[in-house]
Amino acid sequence: MRIELRSDTFTKPTAAMLNAMFKAEVGDDVFGEDPSVNLLEARAAAIFGKPAALYCPTGTMSNQIAIKVHTQPGDELICDQQAHVYIYEGGGIAFNSGCQVKAIKGDQGRINAAQVADAINPDDVHKARTSLVCLENTSNRGGGSCYNLSDIVQISQLCKVEGLSLHLDGARLFNALVATGQSALQYGEVFDSISVCLNKGLGCPIGSILIGSQEFIRKARRIRKVFGGGMRQAGFMAAAGIYALEHHIHRLQTDHDNAKQIASALLKKDFVGGIMPVETNLVIFEVTGRFSAAELVHRFKVNDIHCLAISPTQIRMVTHLDITTTMVNRLVSVIDGL
Amino acid sequence: MRIELRSDTFTKPTAAMLNAMFKAEVGDDVFGEDPSVNLLEARAAAIFGKPAALYCPTGTMSNQIAIKVHTQPGDELICDQQAHVYIYEGGGIAFNSGCQVKAIKGDQGRINAAQVADAINPDDVHKARTSLVCLENTSNRGGGSCYNLSDIVQISQLCKVEGLSLHLDGARLFNALVATGQSALQYGEVFDSISVCLNKGLGCPIGSILIGSQEFIRKARRIRKVFGGGMRQAGFMAAAGIYALEHHIHRLQTDHDNAKQIASALLKKDFVGGIMPVETNLVIFEVTGRFSAAELVHRFKVNDIHCLAISPTQIRMVTHLDITTTMVNRLVSVIDGL
Amino acid sequence: MRIELRSDTFTKPTAAMLNAMFKAEVGDDVFGEDPSVNLLEARAAAIFGKPAALYCPTGTMSNQIAIKVHTQPGDELICDQQAHVYIYEGGGIAFNSGCQVKAIKGDQGRINAAQVADAINPDDVHKARTSLVCLENTSNRGGGSCYNLSDIVQISQLCKVEGLSLHLDGARLFNALVATGQSALQYGEVFDSISVCLNKGLGCPIGSILIGSQEFIRKARRIRKVFGGGMRQAGFMAAAGIYALEHHIHRLQTDHDNAKQIASALLKKDFVGGIMPVETNLVIFEVTGRFSAAELVHRFKVNDIHCLAISPTQIRMVTHLDITTTMVNRLVSVIDGL
Amino acid sequence: MRIELRSDTFTKPTAAMLNAMFKAEVGDDVFGEDPSVNLLEARAAAIFGKPAALYCPTGTMSNQIAIKVHTQPGDELICDQQAHVYIYEGGGIAFNSGCQVKAIKGDQGRINAAQVADAINPDDVHKARTSLVCLENTSNRGGGSCYNLSDIVQISQLCKVEGLSLHLDGARLFNALVATGQSALQYGEVFDSISVCLNKGLGCPIGSILIGSQEFIRKARRIRKVFGGGMRQAGFMAAAGIYALEHHIHRLQTDHDNAKQIASALLKKDFVGGIMPVETNLVIFEVTGRFSAAELVHRFKVNDIHCLAISPTQIRMVTHLDITTTMVNRLVSVIDGL
Repeated sequence: MRIELRSDTFTKPTAAMLNAMFKAEVGDDVFGEDPSVNLLEARAAAIFGKPAALYCPTGTMSNQIAIKVHTQPGDELICDQQAHVYIYEGGGIAFNSGCQVKAIKGDQGRINAAQVADAINPDDVHKARTSLVCLENTSNRGGGSCYNLSDIVQISQLCKVEGLSLHLDGARLFNALVATGQSALQYGEVFDSISVCLNKGLGCPIGSILIGSQEFIRKARRIRKVFGGGMRQAGFMAAAGIYALEHHIHRLQTDHDNAKQIASALLKKDFVGGIMPVETNLVIFEVTGRFSAAELVHRFKVNDIHCLAISPTQIRMVTHLDITTTMVNRLVSVIDGL
Repeated sequence: MRIELRSDTFTKPTAAMLNAMFKAEVGDDVFGEDPSVNLLEARAAAIFGKPAALYCPTGTMSNQIAIKVHTQPGDELICDQQAHVYIYEGGGIAFNSGCQVKAIKGDQGRINAAQVADAINPDDVHKARTSLVCLENTSNRGGGSCYNLSDIVQISQLCKVEGLSLHLDGARLFNALVATGQSALQYGEVFDSISVCLNKGLGCPIGSILIGSQEFIRKARRIRKVFGGGMRQAGFMAAAGIYALEHHIHRLQTDHDNAKQIASALLKKDFVGGIMPVETNLVIFEVTGRFSAAELVHRFKVNDIHCLAISPTQIRMVTHLDITTTMVNRLVSVIDGL
Repeated sequence: MRIELRSDTFTKPTAAMLNAMFKAEVGDDVFGEDPSVNLLEARAAAIFGKPAALYCPTGTMSNQIAIKVHTQPGDELICDQQAHVYIYEGGGIAFNSGCQVKAIKGDQGRINAAQVADAINPDDVHKARTSLVCLENTSNRGGGSCYNLSDIVQISQLCKVEGLSLHLDGARLFNALVATGQSALQYGEVFDSISVCLNKGLGCPIGSILIGSQEFIRKARRIRKVFGGGMRQAGFMAAAGIYALEHHIHRLQTDHDNAKQIASALLKKDFVGGIMPVETNLVIFEVTGRFSAAELVHRFKVNDIHCLAISPTQIRMVTHLDITTTMVNRLVSVIDGL
Repeated sequence: MRIELRSDTFTKPTAAMLNAMFKAEVGDDVFGEDPSVNLLEARAAAIFGKPAALYCPTGTMSNQIAIKVHTQPGDELICDQQAHVYIYEGGGIAFNSGCQVKAIKGDQGRINAAQVADAINPDDVHKARTSLVCLENTSNRGGGSCYNLSDIVQISQLCKVEGLSLHLDGARLFNALVATGQSALQYGEVFDSISVCLNKGLGCPIGSILIGSQEFIRKARRIRKVFGGGMRQAGFMAAAGIYALEHHIHRLQTDHDNAKQIASALLKKDFVGGIMPVETNLVIFEVTGRFSAAELVHRFKVNDIHCLAISPTQIRMVTHLDITTTMVNRLVSVIDGL
């Protein structure tokens, strides 16, 4: 029994999802004629109370498109110093949009309105023009931490006053919604654009959805084309997205519970130096004493348990659709025995 | 009975292809662990006798990645004035690679070595540095025209002497191979990189494959990531590609025969001003006299026959996997009756 | 006596201009405190009846800034196929602005409204967004040809209807104004932005001026900074510009007369295959029969007469401030003797 | 008597420098024929023991060219979080080079080898490719702080091992050399490229010089052209640079002494919260208690003393060629009286 905890990107479609995929009605989406893609886009927009949405092959593309639409070359974007858009998208902010980053040291990946206010450049030809703030919720490197809605609302109000756009990298947004009881509509109200990954917690094989105004999505469609993201019969994949939006949101609570159970087991061990608060489906902990992170990863691996050393002293375990109670129990017993 | 001739991008998977997709073994391709993607890449590389290949969501992305890997910002690329990379990829050569185009008026989309030689800039700070030649075979706007291999070899030799890279936009390359009897290995020998569309004649729902050296594909993988083209369980789609490479190449002859039959019917009509030589699966003809292109498109449409006006006086019909003999016969009888 | 006809960029300041330069009041222009720069910008704006202007180190920078301000990455720009902005600015349109060029075959570098109308792309994600038309007057590669104002007005009207910006590369605009009797104010009315070279016919050592609306120049100032064109005590050079605008415009007629005299001498020779109509200060002729262009350049060089082979069969001679009647007479006698 | 302490960019040429400019031999530098530019480039290269140099209109352009030559789009550059290239060049790293910045919190603008080692990204498609380290010496925002040569040597060795390029923003490098007794040749040995501002401490009206290998400068010349920095008779300005390299280096000690005298006067005042160590010609101090920075700037201004609030609580005073002993004495007495 392989236990795959490296990432929630490893999920494979359930039988029901696979069935939905292969019965999908499809068409040429470049001509706007794929009914499954059109339905997925309409559903996603409606969930957030926004006018329009765009299906993209990956979350990186959704984010990069949004950043491009919101900015001009030479602009500056404000985000946490460990934001996915900044450290895990291949330098795309500069490559694709010609923009630079003002990286803020947030609280487990969460920045606040005061920090954003400090980071805005004055209108001066020496300084890059600040034009965009990007938040990430949940925060990947923040250990799956969730924002308080009031903190987001404050940033949103500041952005409106300062004329900045506000984008949400919501790769794992539904985890945050389930964990906090916040609603998608509340997010649709405060953000100019939202990207949601269909792959991770939602369990689709590929895909991401980008949500915004009609004008935003019209421009986004152009950028998707120029990146080479305008697929043809994408409906097979979009159908998985439709299925996931219907069936895979509420079950995220199970992943969160599993993550907490794993954290509890780890907490008892002398080789665990500290665990980031487990709010959703990510468990990030410091390895100390008896093992290096690499050694501990290896110890798990010989038990067919697969996790990731995200730094020389940190390990990440991610729960998801394919992690069962049996697996969690076996993992806990392996932890107990170390 | 809908007859869809607007493009060969409209094909839907056959039952057998869908079955192959359904049964595909998949994994996380960003971690290099999708066996179907890995197999497709290995097969495609082998067909062309090249060391490596990369699966991409679209042909536009394959082309744009190749252009980026071969060039630096400020370089100049030589291609036909109606090349897909230049006129149908959203300005991507400039957007993604910061390069400009020296567009040559070729013969039905085919340029020759003498034209390329003339178009190379001298080493002068005023002039963009010429670094890449892109050919397209078959040529979309050239009516599906095919290159003679000897013409390509001459261009290839010139490129080697001049230190230029040579990329093939082979969106419909297998059509050319089937029509001319040339071999994929011959193409692998003369081009530095080749992109092949799995969608069009090969009938997959999405996907393209980019082929080149180990070093080229290593760099291409980086660019794919920064564009947001690094998908996860892409194996469902890659499996269609594997199936297509096995089963959908030789049957392209049928599409070519169908295209010729359509052209013969058109040739007899007074409203047809001229037809580009039909070498593969594209039929592009001038509309004259009784109809405008738009009117004629409409006349077909009321018969549930769908074709495309690609200019105010030109119509394009494309044959493909989903166009049956029955459909061709009905189309011919509609043409006869106009 | 060296006779320098390679370009009008070779002029050296007259004693009076040099005197003006070294008496210049200067300050730090990055802080907006250089009075000479401020005066030059105000004067240039007033001459064209425009609200604002910006001093730049070179004409290439003026053009590149204008193109950047008028466009977004992925846009397409329409110009003649031999426009300076396209073929002599190092690929800057793509490098600096991420835009591609639709190059039109004009009449000696002049394009017309019908050609522009044909070249505008439809609103389609496959196609780059057309956003800018660039004219060049006089046209360098067109042999110093001048536009009729009515042709420009037609293009301008089309641009307004189509929502395109219209930029003039007026490197040698004052030559055109003197030759045709058109006025600078007429140009200010029809163009969104105009760049004028202070170096060439006007005889300054360096510098160019970019003219437009307040908003355009505000954005242009940002781009100038990011290119590294924001100089400090630039007033020494700007003072030359002020002097030139006062004293060096009307004398351009002399350069034009000299060019015509040179052309007349060339016309009689059997080795001259054709001369482009001489409207201003450029003489471009075909070399045929007895000499190659390179050989003829050499023949002149041994007489201390310096001209440029701009292609294997074409020579360019440029008259300017430093070419005296004595020089023209000696040149004519050398031509007569060949 | 106006006392201009806002920046050392405000210097005006001395009579002797102006005389050197006035008498300069000039030519068309785009054709490589300006003898003064050629001489300046040769001298500057020789001072640093490097093969080649390039004259640029500004220090921003020198830096931006160097960054472009050393990097590819999508790369990452390591520098201090307050480096001029990052915060004062209009977002140029992203705009011109498509690169992102990993900003390090250094010690008064100085970063060390351990920090650089930590900041280098692993070879992973998710991460931007680290390719360049930029140091700034003296550091502007570090209050004119100087590097120890041994710290630079360590960084240089690390860069060689890791395959990174190393660029020096030496806008005020000669201040550092004079203050520390280090030599230009030592810098030429450890850096791949060095930009030196001729404007600031050296007192020229405009200009900067970029120094490196033949191949580096050959590429830099291309980039200078595409930015529009290839000027014609730039020799008038280059002559000021030649004069400055001969006569204005050793006198920088006077500026440093003046800065220390100003700092001593400030140290006694209750409204001065802290002064950054004064190593060269910059005095940066915290304003506290009785005044805001803006108020204190105003107090000085009514005494015709001009300084800059660089943050709400920080003031910068810069000494330079035009600041005399008399001025310093008057400033000290004004400070004493506050």
